[in-house]
Amino acid sequence: MLEQLMNMLEEREDEMIAIRRHLHENPELSFQEENTAAYIEDFYQDKGVEIETEAGNGHGIIVTIKGGKPGKVVALRADFDALPINEEAEVPFKSKHEGIMHACGHDAHTAYLLVLADSLIQLREHIQGTVKIIHQHAEEVPPGGAKSIVEAGYLDDVDAIFGVHVLPMAPAGTVGYRSGYTFNGRAYFKLRIQASGGHGSSPHKANDAIVAGSYFVTAAQTIVSRRVDPLRTGVVTIGSFDGKGSFNVIKDSIEIEGDIRYSDNETRDVISKEIQRIANGIEETFGVICELTYEPDYPPLYNDPDMTVFVADTLKNMDDEDIKEVKEFPRLSPSEDFAYYLEKIPGSYFFIGCTPKGVKEPYFNHHPKFDIDEDCLLVAAKSVGAVVFEFLEASHKE
Amino acid sequence: MLEQLMNMLEEREDEMIAIRRHLHENPELSFQEENTAAYIEDFYQDKGVEIETEAGNGHGIIVTIKGGKPGKVVALRADFDALPINEEAEVPFKSKHEGIMHACGHDAHTAYLLVLADSLIQLREHIQGTVKIIHQHAEEVPPGGAKSIVEAGYLDDVDAIFGVHVLPMAPAGTVGYRSGYTFNGRAYFKLRIQASGGHGSSPHKANDAIVAGSYFVTAAQTIVSRRVDPLRTGVVTIGSFDGKGSFNVIKDSIEIEGDIRYSDNETRDVISKEIQRIANGIEETFGVICELTYEPDYPPLYNDPDMTVFVADTLKNMDDEDIKEVKEFPRLSPSEDFAYYLEKIPGSYFFIGCTPKGVKEPYFNHHPKFDIDEDCLLVAAKSVGAVVFEFLEASHKE
Amino acid sequence: MLEQLMNMLEEREDEMIAIRRHLHENPELSFQEENTAAYIEDFYQDKGVEIETEAGNGHGIIVTIKGGKPGKVVALRADFDALPINEEAEVPFKSKHEGIMHACGHDAHTAYLLVLADSLIQLREHIQGTVKIIHQHAEEVPPGGAKSIVEAGYLDDVDAIFGVHVLPMAPAGTVGYRSGYTFNGRAYFKLRIQASGGHGSSPHKANDAIVAGSYFVTAAQTIVSRRVDPLRTGVVTIGSFDGKGSFNVIKDSIEIEGDIRYSDNETRDVISKEIQRIANGIEETFGVICELTYEPDYPPLYNDPDMTVFVADTLKNMDDEDIKEVKEFPRLSPSEDFAYYLEKIPGSYFFIGCTPKGVKEPYFNHHPKFDIDEDCLLVAAKSVGAVVFEFLEASHKE
Amino acid sequence: MLEQLMNMLEEREDEMIAIRRHLHENPELSFQEENTAAYIEDFYQDKGVEIETEAGNGHGIIVTIKGGKPGKVVALRADFDALPINEEAEVPFKSKHEGIMHACGHDAHTAYLLVLADSLIQLREHIQGTVKIIHQHAEEVPPGGAKSIVEAGYLDDVDAIFGVHVLPMAPAGTVGYRSGYTFNGRAYFKLRIQASGGHGSSPHKANDAIVAGSYFVTAAQTIVSRRVDPLRTGVVTIGSFDGKGSFNVIKDSIEIEGDIRYSDNETRDVISKEIQRIANGIEETFGVICELTYEPDYPPLYNDPDMTVFVADTLKNMDDEDIKEVKEFPRLSPSEDFAYYLEKIPGSYFFIGCTPKGVKEPYFNHHPKFDIDEDCLLVAAKSVGAVVFEFLEASHKE
Repeated sequence: MLEQLMNMLEEREDEMIAIRRHLHENPELSFQEENTAAYIEDFYQDKGVEIETEAGNGHGIIVTIKGGKPGKVVALRADFDALPINEEAEVPFKSKHEGIMHACGHDAHTAYLLVLADSLIQLREHIQGTVKIIHQHAEEVPPGGAKSIVEAGYLDDVDAIFGVHVLPMAPAGTVGYRSGYTFNGRAYFKLRIQASGGHGSSPHKANDAIVAGSYFVTAAQTIVSRRVDPLRTGVVTIGSFDGKGSFNVIKDSIEIEGDIRYSDNETRDVISKEIQRIANGIEETFGVICELTYEPDYPPLYNDPDMTVFVADTLKNMDDEDIKEVKEFPRLSPSEDFAYYLEKIPGSYFFIGCTPKGVKEPYFNHHPKFDIDEDCLLVAAKSVGAVVFEFLEASHKE
Repeated sequence: MLEQLMNMLEEREDEMIAIRRHLHENPELSFQEENTAAYIEDFYQDKGVEIETEAGNGHGIIVTIKGGKPGKVVALRADFDALPINEEAEVPFKSKHEGIMHACGHDAHTAYLLVLADSLIQLREHIQGTVKIIHQHAEEVPPGGAKSIVEAGYLDDVDAIFGVHVLPMAPAGTVGYRSGYTFNGRAYFKLRIQASGGHGSSPHKANDAIVAGSYFVTAAQTIVSRRVDPLRTGVVTIGSFDGKGSFNVIKDSIEIEGDIRYSDNETRDVISKEIQRIANGIEETFGVICELTYEPDYPPLYNDPDMTVFVADTLKNMDDEDIKEVKEFPRLSPSEDFAYYLEKIPGSYFFIGCTPKGVKEPYFNHHPKFDIDEDCLLVAAKSVGAVVFEFLEASHKE
Repeated sequence: MLEQLMNMLEEREDEMIAIRRHLHENPELSFQEENTAAYIEDFYQDKGVEIETEAGNGHGIIVTIKGGKPGKVVALRADFDALPINEEAEVPFKSKHEGIMHACGHDAHTAYLLVLADSLIQLREHIQGTVKIIHQHAEEVPPGGAKSIVEAGYLDDVDAIFGVHVLPMAPAGTVGYRSGYTFNGRAYFKLRIQASGGHGSSPHKANDAIVAGSYFVTAAQTIVSRRVDPLRTGVVTIGSFDGKGSFNVIKDSIEIEGDIRYSDNETRDVISKEIQRIANGIEETFGVICELTYEPDYPPLYNDPDMTVFVADTLKNMDDEDIKEVKEFPRLSPSEDFAYYLEKIPGSYFFIGCTPKGVKEPYFNHHPKFDIDEDCLLVAAKSVGAVVFEFLEASHKE
Repeated sequence: MLEQLMNMLEEREDEMIAIRRHLHENPELSFQEENTAAYIEDFYQDKGVEIETEAGNGHGIIVTIKGGKPGKVVALRADFDALPINEEAEVPFKSKHEGIMHACGHDAHTAYLLVLADSLIQLREHIQGTVKIIHQHAEEVPPGGAKSIVEAGYLDDVDAIFGVHVLPMAPAGTVGYRSGYTFNGRAYFKLRIQASGGHGSSPHKANDAIVAGSYFVTAAQTIVSRRVDPLRTGVVTIGSFDGKGSFNVIKDSIEIEGDIRYSDNETRDVISKEIQRIANGIEETFGVICELTYEPDYPPLYNDPDMTVFVADTLKNMDDEDIKEVKEFPRLSPSEDFAYYLEKIPGSYFFIGCTPKGVKEPYFNHHPKFDIDEDCLLVAAKSVGAVVFEFLEASHKE
């Protein structure tokens, strides 16, 4: 059946491209993807599959493809939200919505998965188990869609999950994999320091919030420099220091906001503990009140090692002319809410090379000139198709 | 003649009070004192003295009283601008201008000096020299009025200058003096740090302006703690740290603004040099660009020691029932543009106690509930009158 | 009788000089002044006065001169210890003890007071009250001798105390006075930071004491820059940061030692509270253990304003040819254990100019080339003699 | 021939253990390994191979085994120095030299390589190329032995190099490999800050070296927190802050020493540049003189990816009962001078598991209780033997 699936996908490559271009021209921001969701829902009409819409905290769509034979349940996920970026890429199907762009490739993710899902539907009698298609809204903006889909119970009966991301760090034809921690987790924090104001000439009658805040910033550098394991990743960025005031009035309060990244859960725990500790220390040192709000959002994405070996081995052994190279990819510094699925069940999130042909230094995801080689759509469909097929086959044999 | 002058002043005490109340009801902000200036100009009409209006960079008024006998030229100054404060004092002659208040006592200064000047005009035949009356605009807002009056040459022929400030730290009847540095000088600075922005997850690709700014703030603490002579006064207040931004974007630039105070010129030089040095050091340490704007305004007010002894001795020896106590006052932390006059010529700026009767903890100058004991008006008029009379007498004898 | 006393002192000027030179040649370190004490004790033999030796925690000597008439009790104090300094002054009576020198003028203090005391003994019948002579050991090294003399009760019956210090900031003939806080108080502190060591390549497994200590030093700068009243004096010097170790081993503990100065008791309280607060803050911020030892020693020296006016007026009105000028002196940054006496009873500690003749830039106290104009001895004897005489006279009249 | 080699090694396992125990009992410190070198030299006597002694900057020994057939030249290296650690492991062959211990397993490295070399000598007729055996002195103490051996030209004719390190993070039978950067590089730095001393009460007359040094320490935290790529490794440890002094004397100079680690050459360059920049910045900020000495020593160890794949594949395909598992190992934070060889020629340095039997939490290398499972000796000999054999075979075929 795998060969049949591959052939079907090859035949429908143009359709994937057409869908991707349609989505690219009509991007919608996270949590506002009404038309995109309607388009997807429409795609599945009359295909005889169960569709759940408005899944999770937004426009998520869950499609359940029950195979003709009993077996495990495997989920496949593609995200479909776009970014608040004004497209600068010179493509004929440029975004029609000013200031909004599919600059992260979610259009490609959705396009390949629609066609793959439809192909699986057509072959469903041969499938040994169930395939759940998760069209996920709102990946770009925390809290994201994934968490709410997990919480709604859609993964409760799922045994494994797979997904891919297009990345221009390799050409179309290359599939990347990575075992273990792969994307960083992240957290947001806000620190309000309440001191007491006064006249610039009389510091002893006031308590200077800017001074306390500045010492917080310098002390916070030690979290990464001294507390995080040097072989792991931790980042503490203070992106906002809101202390604007009159030059000659001692500032009574300031507000600091920051962005935290970590490669793994242990580092997450170290950083959250240390931020709190330093806030407490600044309170004591300067006699101020520190109100710390700390909100972890996407966890570190952890690819199950066995599942990843399974993906890598499956693809390496395929001998498919479209899948030219299968190799390990490095860890990535962004965050990805697929991580929530992987906290719930094993799986692997892997990579589809998409460097535009002839381009040596491609623009990366989130750049206004981000572009892809559309050959990657077929590679994605085939790779994920092969993985899901082989997974269900292999599970059946166990 | 001194006795005659004192008697005249005693008789006109009610007039001083009336003038002060009129001015108190009609306060005007610095550089906008049109009606106040017109009132003063009007006061001198038909008194046979030379009046120059619009003196300096605003509504300053210079009145020259030529005495009947040759002698030195002594200047007397009173300021007449008010503050952007909404009056909360419960007085029948409360400010009629919402948000504007004579909260620093300049109404009292002008009131006593008008009556004293008029009395001197009446006695002018007996005066051995010339008295220049400086009704100064805009003391509260740098660059102030004093500097421009000096620059316009009004003091070029003046031998000495005197002035007073009402202060509620002693009751009416007390006159305070202080030799040497008495009010602090001050400067303003702005530091713009230009670094380079980037994504919060990739600090190595950016250069963090908030971190550089915070280290500037911590390093700047050493100016006062280590570089200023502990027996002198230096203050470096950073009143504004404008670094508001997105929590997850590394800030590309920030702006810091600060207020600097110093007791004396040597400390002024130390601080200005160190601020520049630290800005240069932060540039080097963090590879950023520091644009430092440094603007000194009012200098430290330095009372000539001989003139101050002269004031103190004159008043101590007066045996006047209204001048009950003459004593040394402590240094004061604010700034005062009378300092510019004292950079040009010798003189002494002294203090008139004005604690409202029955009040134990009076509200200080610049407080919305600031109030005075109007008995201080006569004390001011008599003190300054006696000083100017004795000074011209003494000069004549030399 | 005052005239008689002055004449006696004039006649014994050479004796003062001889005694001073003897003491100068034979300096002894604080708490080790055995020979000096024996010399002083010997001086009083057979003079019919009560002598107490080994007073306080060392070689202090208290001599009580009971006057012929009833009256108040006034104490006079001179200190007699020397410094661990190798003399470099070129004088014929250079120190015979290598590495020890009377570089602070205590030899002069003792010399004038011995002769003054003896003169008062001779005139005792005319004295209206009692004079207690305090020859104090160990002024230079905390805890000093003064505190123990106070604690031993020697001042319990004393009404006022006076003393002088020779200072080369004015020529012999000048007497300086200052009301209120005059010398700084001081404290010592030690901060031991206990963290945990480890290999330089693995900071996350250790806790870096050097980093915690460095943040303590930077935070401590804010005590003076932000917490101390700019019109007062506070100094926090960290003189020792003992963190020597192997370059590649994370230091498990460090020890910081510091010197604190303050102009007054309020500032003393501010600094001691803030040091403790910052130590607590560092504990919290870095998860270390901070052991803070804080030991105030000499308090700020506070000259009673009334007593100081009394001293100044007495000397200004003397019309003595040796006392050429009587003027206010500035505050001084060192510390002086005479402060303990003034915590107990009112009095005034004043200054005797001693610039060597013909010297424009004299070496100051504690310099290896420190020297005095011996004319100051007679000025000291006359000044203190006049003050004590007039004080007892005046007290009697009350 | 490979099978024959494996059999020979199996038969000589006891000999390896005996040699290892002899070396373990007789450890010698880096650069002082005279007896160890003599023992090794002795081992090769009468074996008909070329031996060079005193190779490099110490007791290095190079043995050249020329095969019977032409081919490439491959080098194998084992280090033989011990550590200044007092052994606490309870073994019958405990170190006889107090305070010196083979706590890093170099005894095991040398033991297996001697027997492997001798076996290869016996089989030399069958070898297609040349094997250079490098018995390296002084791995533990920079500048180490490796650099000098490279500089002496011993690798000029070598095509590839291999070596192993015993690690207790896996049991005997496990072989670990890692491609690319594997051990961290490191550097040493010393910063002398020259300021100017003075009395603790007068900071403005001095320039405080401890304050400047503390700000250096806090600023240096930003190198790792903000300048190093979060996906790479950088460590800046300040192990020594030598600022001991008198508590009340402002320190005129301090000396800081530090240890720097980096995963790769790009990070090395970032850190060395930033340290210099911050030293310059501190100079400017505090007006001090910073003398920075910066000495990189062992570079990051970079395993050639192709060579590493070759090692992994060779061992995975061996089907030898002693080599039970072959897997990727994580990056390691220490440094290793094998890195110098790999800067010169391609190769791979891999790992031999050695957890003592029955131990769950083994003591790591450099611990006084470090111990190994001696089964690892045979694993090492077989693994390296197989790699060298297959490499020469494969090269021949090319």
